[in-house]
Amino acid sequence: MSFVPELEEILGTSLITDPDITASYSKDQAPFAPFTPAAAVLLARSSEEISKALVFCSERKIPVVTRGAGSGLSGGANADSQSLIVSLEKMNQILEIDPANQLARVQAGVINLDLDIAVKEFGMAYLPDPASRDWSTLGGNVATNAGGMCCVKYGVTSHHVRALTVVLSSGEIIEVGKSTKKFVTTLDLMHLFIGSEGTLGIITEITLNLVPRPNSPATLIATFPNIVLAAAASTELLKYRPSMLEILDQTTLNAVEQWHPLGLEVAGSILLMQLDENFELGDAAITTCESLGMIDGMFSTEASDTADLIRVRKLAYPALERLGATLLDDVAVPVAKIAEFVERVEALAVKHDLIIGIFGHAGDGNMHPTIVHDHGDIEGEKRAKLAFSEIVRIAQSLGGTASGEHGIGIIKRNLVSGETSQTIIDIQRGVKKLLDPSGILNPGKKLP
Amino acid sequence: MSFVPELEEILGTSLITDPDITASYSKDQAPFAPFTPAAAVLLARSSEEISKALVFCSERKIPVVTRGAGSGLSGGANADSQSLIVSLEKMNQILEIDPANQLARVQAGVINLDLDIAVKEFGMAYLPDPASRDWSTLGGNVATNAGGMCCVKYGVTSHHVRALTVVLSSGEIIEVGKSTKKFVTTLDLMHLFIGSEGTLGIITEITLNLVPRPNSPATLIATFPNIVLAAAASTELLKYRPSMLEILDQTTLNAVEQWHPLGLEVAGSILLMQLDENFELGDAAITTCESLGMIDGMFSTEASDTADLIRVRKLAYPALERLGATLLDDVAVPVAKIAEFVERVEALAVKHDLIIGIFGHAGDGNMHPTIVHDHGDIEGEKRAKLAFSEIVRIAQSLGGTASGEHGIGIIKRNLVSGETSQTIIDIQRGVKKLLDPSGILNPGKKLP
Repeated sequence: MSFVPELEEILGTSLITDPDITASYSKDQAPFAPFTPAAAVLLARSSEEISKALVFCSERKIPVVTRGAGSGLSGGANADSQSLIVSLEKMNQILEIDPANQLARVQAGVINLDLDIAVKEFGMAYLPDPASRDWSTLGGNVATNAGGMCCVKYGVTSHHVRALTVVLSSGEIIEVGKSTKKFVTTLDLMHLFIGSEGTLGIITEITLNLVPRPNSPATLIATFPNIVLAAAASTELLKYRPSMLEILDQTTLNAVEQWHPLGLEVAGSILLMQLDENFELGDAAITTCESLGMIDGMFSTEASDTADLIRVRKLAYPALERLGATLLDDVAVPVAKIAEFVERVEALAVKHDLIIGIFGHAGDGNMHPTIVHDHGDIEGEKRAKLAFSEIVRIAQSLGGTASGEHGIGIIKRNLVSGETSQTIIDIQRGVKKLLDPSGILNPGKKLP
Repeated sequence: MSFVPELEEILGTSLITDPDITASYSKDQAPFAPFTPAAAVLLARSSEEISKALVFCSERKIPVVTRGAGSGLSGGANADSQSLIVSLEKMNQILEIDPANQLARVQAGVINLDLDIAVKEFGMAYLPDPASRDWSTLGGNVATNAGGMCCVKYGVTSHHVRALTVVLSSGEIIEVGKSTKKFVTTLDLMHLFIGSEGTLGIITEITLNLVPRPNSPATLIATFPNIVLAAAASTELLKYRPSMLEILDQTTLNAVEQWHPLGLEVAGSILLMQLDENFELGDAAITTCESLGMIDGMFSTEASDTADLIRVRKLAYPALERLGATLLDDVAVPVAKIAEFVERVEALAVKHDLIIGIFGHAGDGNMHPTIVHDHGDIEGEKRAKLAFSEIVRIAQSLGGTASGEHGIGIIKRNLVSGETSQTIIDIQRGVKKLLDPSGILNPGKKLP
């Protein structure tokens, strides 16, 4: 009955079928996203092996869920009991570091930070820095078009990808994009796969941009009496081309203060900015903040101060997690609408009797309201789920979008249509059908 | 017999049908690319008008060629006698400049430079700077994914586009992308249209990134005894994050010297670099050049020197044009292969008894060999066309690509397959069929 013995014979390798192990492979980090342990897990070793597996699965309509480190936050890597999971974790070789051409070629299972460490000795950096960069894979970063803090200056993952090797569900192995910096010879098929969350093909190799390693950053911290002023200041600070620009609201600040008092309890909101060049602009940045109602602030070019100054941001999510079960949202709004967004989410917290801490990437309007309810409080959980969706609706009503960087996965599929026309939905389905005619790749994800 | 009266009635406006006028609308700047005067030209005024025209043309299978300023270099805007040309030149309104959200929304017919001038008073810049920026349209820039000199630091046009309004051949008007800086809610359909050269839809509105206006650049000029050393130096100079990095070979230099003596006749090659920040790196950059065999060089932060220093680059193409009929090629190679590329193209010039001047964007390996033959020399013209294709083959053999920024249009359609698998060609055709099922949009362009 099971497809496992036959596939094992075709591949000449064992699949993991122990339910205790497959269960841990069958979900990512999204709470409330449904999953059941997959039928089997393939620890893939090559594009060719994946190709054989996909030919087999296409013929038999076996769903295939691709997985990197499982650090996703939208259920995009969740499986069901019929599925084969293809884990890329063993395809973790850095294939080439080419400083002259400013690129690296990696297998999809390489950890983001491992690449950055490896290129450091060449004086280079791989810039995209999702919060998960210490453990998430580059394949997962590309499949979700992951963001991070440096996006405000350097753009999202897609801006740093030159070429991909992709295995299609037909088993064909294709190259999209080109290792040259410029390329207009074909239609741009590469970006279809970036952010496609495993629905169009399995990304196995990636050619990425490297850049000369930036300086250790200088850091500005500024407290404000309320988020409206802090948000206004953040918009002004963009002119200094920050390499990081983060905002925290009072709820988040309170959660941090209760845990690790940093002396910031008087503030209604806090801004953090980093510059990785043009440090001489620090004084002007402080003046900008002062003119917009800053309570207190400082700018330091001392690398040794950095960790202390950005500590409040690093503690934001864990501090909220201490208060109960959390549901981390991810929306993007126009930066000029951050203050209005926060006010409406604060009202939502009151309405639903929930704690909602709001922090995020002020520089690109990518906000992470984090909904807290008591562990085991079923009614609270219901209200939290409701608030999760309502936050998306608020963002959409402000010209924003359902997801800035975490992806749609399972948990936001029913929220996409709030901002997406039927024609766009139909085109997406057409692209899916073109590239995955058997429909086996991550069914039920991403597309509404 | 003609479709014109019926379409005029549907649109309630006149089409241009005077053959003297339609002829001038029926081609771009590519020499040797075939065209015949189109049946009619629509000076479009709105997406809705274009939608009506495309519904009509889809029903009757009338080919539609979209046109901006006609500054293309690959025949992508060339028409035949059956075609309707849709010119976007009258859709030239800047719809919105939003400095807080760092974006501008424009109609596709806005001239690139006009946008940059308009945003200057807000302290902002629109960075992409194709050589045609004074007269090419933003719609054309997006449709070709135009490059330019600043790409070495700031990337190509696609890196600066947030969202597009596109009219499909079905008449449907869709929005792809999002005005927020981050967006992963749908599959990335936007990049399909960027660089698609009018084959998938008609781009009518564009939301573009603005950035804080960079400083007036400082300029480095350095002469080298040969192109191998200059190319090696250019690779090293990338570490200073130049906002421009250009190279010229001796043939080009000789052509300039014969016309406007600049005192550079002893050099075998010349490098030009600009920095738009971190001017303190200028001395180190000169030292880098010295260590790689620089003959002479200087670095100036004086804005008044800039025009003089980069004059040799501005004169490169016109100086070669003075020598005869020219055929401007456009390929991209890995930057570490520039020297080898140039040597092989120089050998090609000897083999075919042609003058080939080579200059280009050293920072991203995007080279523009310019083939010169005598006006009216039919045999020379044949050899030039042959060399044009052979230059592409050389680039491809070095891991490069047929086009870095000019596009495929008509003139390179038969060269694409040298680097593109049949599967990729089939997927492109599938995408074309999905988005333009009637096949009316710029048939015979871009796709092999």
